[in-house]
Amino acid sequence: MSFASDNWAGAAPEILDAIIRANDGAAPGYGGDTLTKKVEAKFAEIFERDCAVYFVATGGAANGLALSVMTPPYGMVLCHEESHVQMDECAGPEFFTGGAKLLPIAGENGKLSADAIRKTLKGFPHRPPHGAPASALSLTQGTECGTRYSVDETSVVCAAACEAGLSVHMDGARFSNAVAASGASPAELTWKAGVDVLCFGGTKNGCIAAEAVIFFDRHRAMDFEFMRKRAGHLWSKMRFIAAQFDAYLEDGLWLKLASHANAMAQRLSSGLAAINGVSIMYPTDINELFVTFPDGVADKLRDGGDIFYPWITPGDPADGRGHRLICSFRTTEEEVDEFLERVRKVCD
Amino acid sequence: MSFASDNWAGAAPEILDAIIRANDGAAPGYGGDTLTKKVEAKFAEIFERDCAVYFVATGGAANGLALSVMTPPYGMVLCHEESHVQMDECAGPEFFTGGAKLLPIAGENGKLSADAIRKTLKGFPHRPPHGAPASALSLTQGTECGTRYSVDETSVVCAAACEAGLSVHMDGARFSNAVAASGASPAELTWKAGVDVLCFGGTKNGCIAAEAVIFFDRHRAMDFEFMRKRAGHLWSKMRFIAAQFDAYLEDGLWLKLASHANAMAQRLSSGLAAINGVSIMYPTDINELFVTFPDGVADKLRDGGDIFYPWITPGDPADGRGHRLICSFRTTEEEVDEFLERVRKVCD
Amino acid sequence: MSFASDNWAGAAPEILDAIIRANDGAAPGYGGDTLTKKVEAKFAEIFERDCAVYFVATGGAANGLALSVMTPPYGMVLCHEESHVQMDECAGPEFFTGGAKLLPIAGENGKLSADAIRKTLKGFPHRPPHGAPASALSLTQGTECGTRYSVDETSVVCAAACEAGLSVHMDGARFSNAVAASGASPAELTWKAGVDVLCFGGTKNGCIAAEAVIFFDRHRAMDFEFMRKRAGHLWSKMRFIAAQFDAYLEDGLWLKLASHANAMAQRLSSGLAAINGVSIMYPTDINELFVTFPDGVADKLRDGGDIFYPWITPGDPADGRGHRLICSFRTTEEEVDEFLERVRKVCD
Amino acid sequence: MSFASDNWAGAAPEILDAIIRANDGAAPGYGGDTLTKKVEAKFAEIFERDCAVYFVATGGAANGLALSVMTPPYGMVLCHEESHVQMDECAGPEFFTGGAKLLPIAGENGKLSADAIRKTLKGFPHRPPHGAPASALSLTQGTECGTRYSVDETSVVCAAACEAGLSVHMDGARFSNAVAASGASPAELTWKAGVDVLCFGGTKNGCIAAEAVIFFDRHRAMDFEFMRKRAGHLWSKMRFIAAQFDAYLEDGLWLKLASHANAMAQRLSSGLAAINGVSIMYPTDINELFVTFPDGVADKLRDGGDIFYPWITPGDPADGRGHRLICSFRTTEEEVDEFLERVRKVCD
Repeated sequence: MSFASDNWAGAAPEILDAIIRANDGAAPGYGGDTLTKKVEAKFAEIFERDCAVYFVATGGAANGLALSVMTPPYGMVLCHEESHVQMDECAGPEFFTGGAKLLPIAGENGKLSADAIRKTLKGFPHRPPHGAPASALSLTQGTECGTRYSVDETSVVCAAACEAGLSVHMDGARFSNAVAASGASPAELTWKAGVDVLCFGGTKNGCIAAEAVIFFDRHRAMDFEFMRKRAGHLWSKMRFIAAQFDAYLEDGLWLKLASHANAMAQRLSSGLAAINGVSIMYPTDINELFVTFPDGVADKLRDGGDIFYPWITPGDPADGRGHRLICSFRTTEEEVDEFLERVRKVCD
Repeated sequence: MSFASDNWAGAAPEILDAIIRANDGAAPGYGGDTLTKKVEAKFAEIFERDCAVYFVATGGAANGLALSVMTPPYGMVLCHEESHVQMDECAGPEFFTGGAKLLPIAGENGKLSADAIRKTLKGFPHRPPHGAPASALSLTQGTECGTRYSVDETSVVCAAACEAGLSVHMDGARFSNAVAASGASPAELTWKAGVDVLCFGGTKNGCIAAEAVIFFDRHRAMDFEFMRKRAGHLWSKMRFIAAQFDAYLEDGLWLKLASHANAMAQRLSSGLAAINGVSIMYPTDINELFVTFPDGVADKLRDGGDIFYPWITPGDPADGRGHRLICSFRTTEEEVDEFLERVRKVCD
Repeated sequence: MSFASDNWAGAAPEILDAIIRANDGAAPGYGGDTLTKKVEAKFAEIFERDCAVYFVATGGAANGLALSVMTPPYGMVLCHEESHVQMDECAGPEFFTGGAKLLPIAGENGKLSADAIRKTLKGFPHRPPHGAPASALSLTQGTECGTRYSVDETSVVCAAACEAGLSVHMDGARFSNAVAASGASPAELTWKAGVDVLCFGGTKNGCIAAEAVIFFDRHRAMDFEFMRKRAGHLWSKMRFIAAQFDAYLEDGLWLKLASHANAMAQRLSSGLAAINGVSIMYPTDINELFVTFPDGVADKLRDGGDIFYPWITPGDPADGRGHRLICSFRTTEEEVDEFLERVRKVCD
Repeated sequence: MSFASDNWAGAAPEILDAIIRANDGAAPGYGGDTLTKKVEAKFAEIFERDCAVYFVATGGAANGLALSVMTPPYGMVLCHEESHVQMDECAGPEFFTGGAKLLPIAGENGKLSADAIRKTLKGFPHRPPHGAPASALSLTQGTECGTRYSVDETSVVCAAACEAGLSVHMDGARFSNAVAASGASPAELTWKAGVDVLCFGGTKNGCIAAEAVIFFDRHRAMDFEFMRKRAGHLWSKMRFIAAQFDAYLEDGLWLKLASHANAMAQRLSSGLAAINGVSIMYPTDINELFVTFPDGVADKLRDGGDIFYPWITPGDPADGRGHRLICSFRTTEEEVDEFLERVRKVCD
């Protein structure tokens, strides 16, 4: 059984159907097609305001390109020390921004606090042109630790950035899971709380390759089209990303898929927590959880065919003993229960 | 009727079928899946040698990433002045390579000659570290002018590069059309003629988004995986690019689609050439042609709903009066004939 | 006898004296000292207007940094195909700008014409975001071919750039020689004619290492201080560059040194032109000249200890047979005459 | 009285004399002169081994360029969170390396420990190509906190880097002060302890603008000349940097100047430590010290004309209450004693 990653799960059938439908007839390239226009408008509706929307195929591209128009090349971007932009993009943000500095900040449960941001900034007094001036804050929603920021937490953290003149980027590779878990609206979790640019992910939650970079203020997006093009991220057959989002946003499919994945993670988390010797490392807010097993248990599970990755990070509370388990829109209750059964046996 | 671009055509049904098939079950991400491995092996077969193969979604990414491991950031890449890398990627190669210099060279019919390359290099004597040392040559096959290099032409041009210590990159966004038109084997048109790295395009010829960067010498590819990842071009659900190539390479589909597009362009070219006042600007070797119409004709055709773009380039032989017409795997004989009929009427 | 380069000549005594004087007492670093402020003001006086002035130590830094704030990283900078930015800075402008494209343009005598600029731009129609948008024009005054633009020529060329929305950069590594030769004022040759940013060189004309980047509109310079700092070009002991300029601008020393170098080049040029079989390749406007000798002559001169470099460039009118001879503020009439005598003997 | 920075101090007379001497006659540019060759050889002697030596004018350039050939653009460079490369170069290392990631690490007294390095690396498990692979460690000797690494400390820290496959860069802007204070040989403090590349500073210790990048293994330096040139850091009149080092290394001038500055800092440190309410924040190993004063004292001293900067950093042990005082080769005993006297009065 694989709890390796939500990107192992393939695509939701609705997404594939939409791709097939979108193939009908000729359509202008590079986003000039009507479907792309339609879906851009859908985003405006979901976020309850006019916004500039750009599609790309990967989360790394979305984050890097978003940051590339949010910071000068000599700027500094604050982020969590376990964030994807810091840990998992092979120095992509530095590449896309032309060499901006990423400043990793520690924080419990994968989250940044307003205090941590203020304290950090205090250590970087304004000394132009010596220090790289802090230009942006990058938040992750839901976080790499399977947690999420509440609306209040988001507002408070954004306020700390805003008071220092930083704009706020949100890596929303698992934004759908965070929204589904929170009950808050997409608008409340983003621009109403102070987020300037959101990378809205579809890939991890049932799309093939579909990410949207959403600028809540169009003026910030001025250079984006050029930056996307030169980075090779402007699709000629753009309608096939648009089609994915068309289905994804239709009738709340995105939240339905995310809710299911979240529920499976909850079930798995509760089940594991009840097993002697198994510990859950962080609150299970979304569709991933992090656990420590008694010695030898993880190896035995893997020998039995279960797939999940060790979880080792800079701020590691388990000192290298953690494991990450991710549920997806495709994970079933039966799979979860079977796995729990196996863990129970091995732990006995 | 649209002759705007082969990327307006959408996807071939076999490609979509393959995507749907590939969705079955969980699969490791980032190219660790069996389908990716299988398709990489298929490329080795088609090119008759071991090679390193990497998938990306766009031609601009393929070219930029390929060049990024073929030149140091202070190097110089020779290319045709009308090539895609020079004209249509928004300074992408400069971005991917960390600032290498592109040197545009003129040449008839979109092609570089060995003489032009030698003459150019003569004007850049070796003066380290003052001049950016010439590091690579970029060829386009088929060219932006709808022509192609024969095997002999390729060999001769590569030899001029090789004798100066340059490695050879081939932008093969329309490689399929060139192969289909030439009757030569993929191997003969590439590594046997001196090409080091090929960007093998699928997108313009019936795929959704599928390009393969092929290193005929694995050693050259050493850094590629890191460069692709940091540029946001490593797909998590890689199997969906692999699936496209799986179908594309199966039973020669790629050549079948390309041959059809080529034939439609031939039909269109012959038909137009026979019309009074219409001139064909370059030999019609592949699936695109370039024409000048009598005054007012192009506007009337566009007013009537036909879609094609003006063709204006640095080495423009028509001084701004040319138009580009592209056929795709989806173009039908009827469409061609209908359009020809319309042109005849308008030209009368 | 060395006619190798004006940078072989060392420093003028006045420059060294000023450095020694500047060493008196403590002074704030990084340009916060009074001498730097004073010299910045001197530039405003010489150019008859308020301007932002920044010092760096090399011409390559001046050009690259100036361009880095004049073009977005995806922009295109037009320049002469034989210009220093294109030929002699090891892809520095591409590095400093974060990957902007340099577009080399041919032109007689090292000069760009308005026609050539207009014709070039015509081949690059506005197609955002595909082509890199033309953002700046770089002129060289005096040119790499030892010629100079008159005030009228400068105005006409700048107008061609301006009408296309390009800003104008002037590489003035030998600006002093051009001013001295022209009789026009610094203002007339720059901002009054349409130049936006001037790199004003001191190094080749008697300074040790002193170049000033002058923005005639302060607003354009906004990011410059950060770009200079991150590129390692902000001197901590800035007063020692300021001191060089202080002496250089005092009592017209810069024009006196340049006039002398120009006069020596004139003397050399006239002398050589009178020798049978020696040809002067371009007009000798400033302090360098380019000649072809009868076969074997250059080698014999070099064997006899004379030093000068072959002149091989992309637009080479002598097909590899040219040589460059440069005079400096230190070149004497006796040296010129002795050399002429030797050439006469060898040519006999 | 200024304790603002060692770069306020100007140049030592011997350095100026050498510059004047070096001006005699013509000399090849770009480091082809005999003086440059001679001084390169001097460095080999001082470091007791063959090495590749390159001169630049600023410490930021030295560090950035050194790192640019020590890490791929997608690599990660470990450094102290208070180091110059992290705090004071405006994201220069990210620029020079083409986007490598700097990873700041905390450590007492401005120093990194082997434990901290090992613990940090443990949090970045090898997951190519996702995480930016750790490629280099950057140490600062003497540190930004006025401390220094002993030979043993250096060896132990380098070993932790070496065992993880990292190469070691040493920012030696105040290397002279560290050597003078340690009594160890330059070789013992660098390559014998495991340092691969040293940026040897002259500017802060009596030169005008002179830094040497020293590769203890020539093979590592392969691309350096190109990288330096394209970054505008290759001086045409290189002899004037060489001349500074010529004098600086002659008869141990570099150590004499550094010893004096160190001694003045010691005197100042002891004096201040004896004053009621004044605390010294770190051990005073070299020529700078960091102090906290009783409330109001710093302001009164500044009002009285004394100059020194507040000291605020990420790992700030004084929570924003610290001040930095730097002595230079020019600081006199009288100046120190006068200042101490004033502090005593104000503190009374």
